[in-house]
Amino acid sequence: AVDGDRLWRSLMDLAAIGATPKGGVCRLALTDEDRRAREMFVEWARAAGCTVRVDPIGNIFARRAGRDPARPAVMTGSHIDTQPTGGKFDGNYGVLAGLEVLRRLNDLDIDTEAPVEVVVWTNEEGSRFVPVMMGSAVFAGAVALDDARAARDGDGISVGDALDRIGFAGPPCERPAIDSYFEAHIEQGPVLEDAGQTIGVVTGALGQRWFDCEVTGFEAHAGPTPMELRRDALQAAAVLMRRVVEIALVHAPHARGTVGQVQVHPNSRNVIPGGVIFSVDFRAPDDAMLDAMEQAFREAMSVVAIDHKVDVALRETSRFAALRFDAGCVAEVAAAARDLGVGAMEIVSGAGHDAIHIATCAPSAMIFVPCAGGISHNELEDADPVDLAAGANILLRCILNRARV
Amino acid sequence: AVDGDRLWRSLMDLAAIGATPKGGVCRLALTDEDRRAREMFVEWARAAGCTVRVDPIGNIFARRAGRDPARPAVMTGSHIDTQPTGGKFDGNYGVLAGLEVLRRLNDLDIDTEAPVEVVVWTNEEGSRFVPVMMGSAVFAGAVALDDARAARDGDGISVGDALDRIGFAGPPCERPAIDSYFEAHIEQGPVLEDAGQTIGVVTGALGQRWFDCEVTGFEAHAGPTPMELRRDALQAAAVLMRRVVEIALVHAPHARGTVGQVQVHPNSRNVIPGGVIFSVDFRAPDDAMLDAMEQAFREAMSVVAIDHKVDVALRETSRFAALRFDAGCVAEVAAAARDLGVGAMEIVSGAGHDAIHIATCAPSAMIFVPCAGGISHNELEDADPVDLAAGANILLRCILNRARV
Ligand SMILES: NC(=O)NCCC(=O)O
Ligand SMILES: NC(=O)NCCC(=O)O
Repeated sequence: AVDGDRLWRSLMDLAAIGATPKGGVCRLALTDEDRRAREMFVEWARAAGCTVRVDPIGNIFARRAGRDPARPAVMTGSHIDTQPTGGKFDGNYGVLAGLEVLRRLNDLDIDTEAPVEVVVWTNEEGSRFVPVMMGSAVFAGAVALDDARAARDGDGISVGDALDRIGFAGPPCERPAIDSYFEAHIEQGPVLEDAGQTIGVVTGALGQRWFDCEVTGFEAHAGPTPMELRRDALQAAAVLMRRVVEIALVHAPHARGTVGQVQVHPNSRNVIPGGVIFSVDFRAPDDAMLDAMEQAFREAMSVVAIDHKVDVALRETSRFAALRFDAGCVAEVAAAARDLGVGAMEIVSGAGHDAIHIATCAPSAMIFVPCAGGISHNELEDADPVDLAAGANILLRCILNRARV
Repeated sequence: AVDGDRLWRSLMDLAAIGATPKGGVCRLALTDEDRRAREMFVEWARAAGCTVRVDPIGNIFARRAGRDPARPAVMTGSHIDTQPTGGKFDGNYGVLAGLEVLRRLNDLDIDTEAPVEVVVWTNEEGSRFVPVMMGSAVFAGAVALDDARAARDGDGISVGDALDRIGFAGPPCERPAIDSYFEAHIEQGPVLEDAGQTIGVVTGALGQRWFDCEVTGFEAHAGPTPMELRRDALQAAAVLMRRVVEIALVHAPHARGTVGQVQVHPNSRNVIPGGVIFSVDFRAPDDAMLDAMEQAFREAMSVVAIDHKVDVALRETSRFAALRFDAGCVAEVAAAARDLGVGAMEIVSGAGHDAIHIATCAPSAMIFVPCAGGISHNELEDADPVDLAAGANILLRCILNRARV
């Protein structure tokens, strides 16, 4: 079994980088905090005897050699970037659970047949740069490296420049052969806790479509401009923001609709807004439902454009089809939970994860553990050390089975 | 008559400071651009033989001596701060029309009995700092100097620090005696243009109540969090933003309701917003109507708080009662227009102006001239040089009448 205390200590050490007063972490992708966290991981991986390689989009691969160097690696990992008001566990747990597995193999002097790699994927959160899950997307070939490097944050800084600045743009390299990929993660929702189960055997993930919706009206003075002459971009946007949620409710209980980000122009108290850009995040268990949701939103856009005398445009920023993980890897997770006598249940992920991209190039699965109150993307995010250790034990068992001893 | 060309040239010279690519001006209160514009005005005023004094809130008084130094001054003026995407005329016209009057008196070697003062009031726009019309409010005693200095912008910078930094916090001084105050301004609405009139004889102004409305929900992950468990601050805010406009429409055609500024926290695409602060700007021709509007909004807040499981708080940031200007000064403006044979009509200001504060300590009135399409608080703001000269001529006549020759 893994050393749960060591895993917890590493989680807390990493959480100190970008720590917020409310107990969370602010470590946006490719910032100085991200760089420092990456350097800490690299140091730990080297101390654990790994060779470390960085690819051109900044993904970090820490490899523990196998007896047979020709065999494809068994991979695990996740991300260490966070939301602006994120928690200590989202992503970080998957990376450090992987590292703990390697450390445990070292403790016990276990040689695996296949190499084992722990990966840190770049910019999973998608908060600073879109598309979300960028590093794994480039690795899997879903997004071109050049397109990813060209993505810009709200201040106009590109991924390419930010990567170069923190020194994590590695040289071009071939994609390594992969035997399988397992990712441990907190659930980020309330299902396991409600059901009183420790392990979520993740069978698949909701499909996602993300957009920027831009509404253009006409700036005018809030005092002398008669109500009926206004072309108020914010009022039109408010109707559409409500529609995003209403459309998700039509497809209850599995669909999701969220507006998380809003930018108002010129954002002055006594100016009727001339422009608003807001994000749309739709999720659903199948693509037909996503099609229907997108269609309903586009219809709402047309109606609002006429009613409010504004222009409305929609630009897609991320897209993933709904996904089922590899049946063999999923069974591996379920069997490990059964063998270790840990309460487990099947679950579908509402969040996107790097595993979704890696699933397109290797058999993959995920292991969920509960988080307190189902709360994530919040500084209050919390998890029970016992559950975290249980998830790492499942991961250890899956890796040992696939990498063979 | 004034020199319309000189007035226009000065307007264009001043508009170069903070000029935007779209032909507007961005010169927020107490920025370096504001400092440079202030310095230009002071230089021009000194060149016109004025003595210049700055008061503790940064209002600039340029005084042309009268034959009788004991007589209260006839005042005119406006402001030279602008909206983030403002125009060349809002405020700037009133200040430079006043300066043109002084220059014309110099050209013609006219000595007035009373002194004439041209004033630049600090932070009229209220875009960077609230309350709006801050300099004239402090001058009139409606806002305490310390409270004004303590006001902070979105970056946490205080008015006091910003004033000290640009070197425009003058020494304590007594409020000078004032005979009367006349302010020339573009209308910032479509009424004069629609009616084909050159001069608006401003009889009064709409009352105003400004608020910050803060909605507090709970941050959570946009993927795994079921729709029915959410406490989405932005969805609640969107309902309330719509109500601001709906409430104004109930009191059509004279009431106004605007949401101009919105801040979402943490403003990340895949985080259900935990907090939203948005501005509310209500205006109406009488205080009973404003009471009813505020009451209706507070009721909406209570309903939304329950429906959306959020907290909603309202904080007043500015308040002015509806106002009627001094009958004598208004008659002076009307008579000047009649004498000069310029088309004029009575009009109520939908915008707040420094004159609203000065009206509480001296007989006051305003002179409106049309602006193209009624457009203001927009980089496209424009005005006809002929109309601007006509307004300055009315101002000259009013000042000559009150200051006696
Ligand atoms: N796991 C996680 O928080 N991923 C971020 C991408 C998403 O919003 O689903
Ligand atoms: N004149 C003007 O634009 N004043 C700003 C204050 C207001 O919003 O009425």
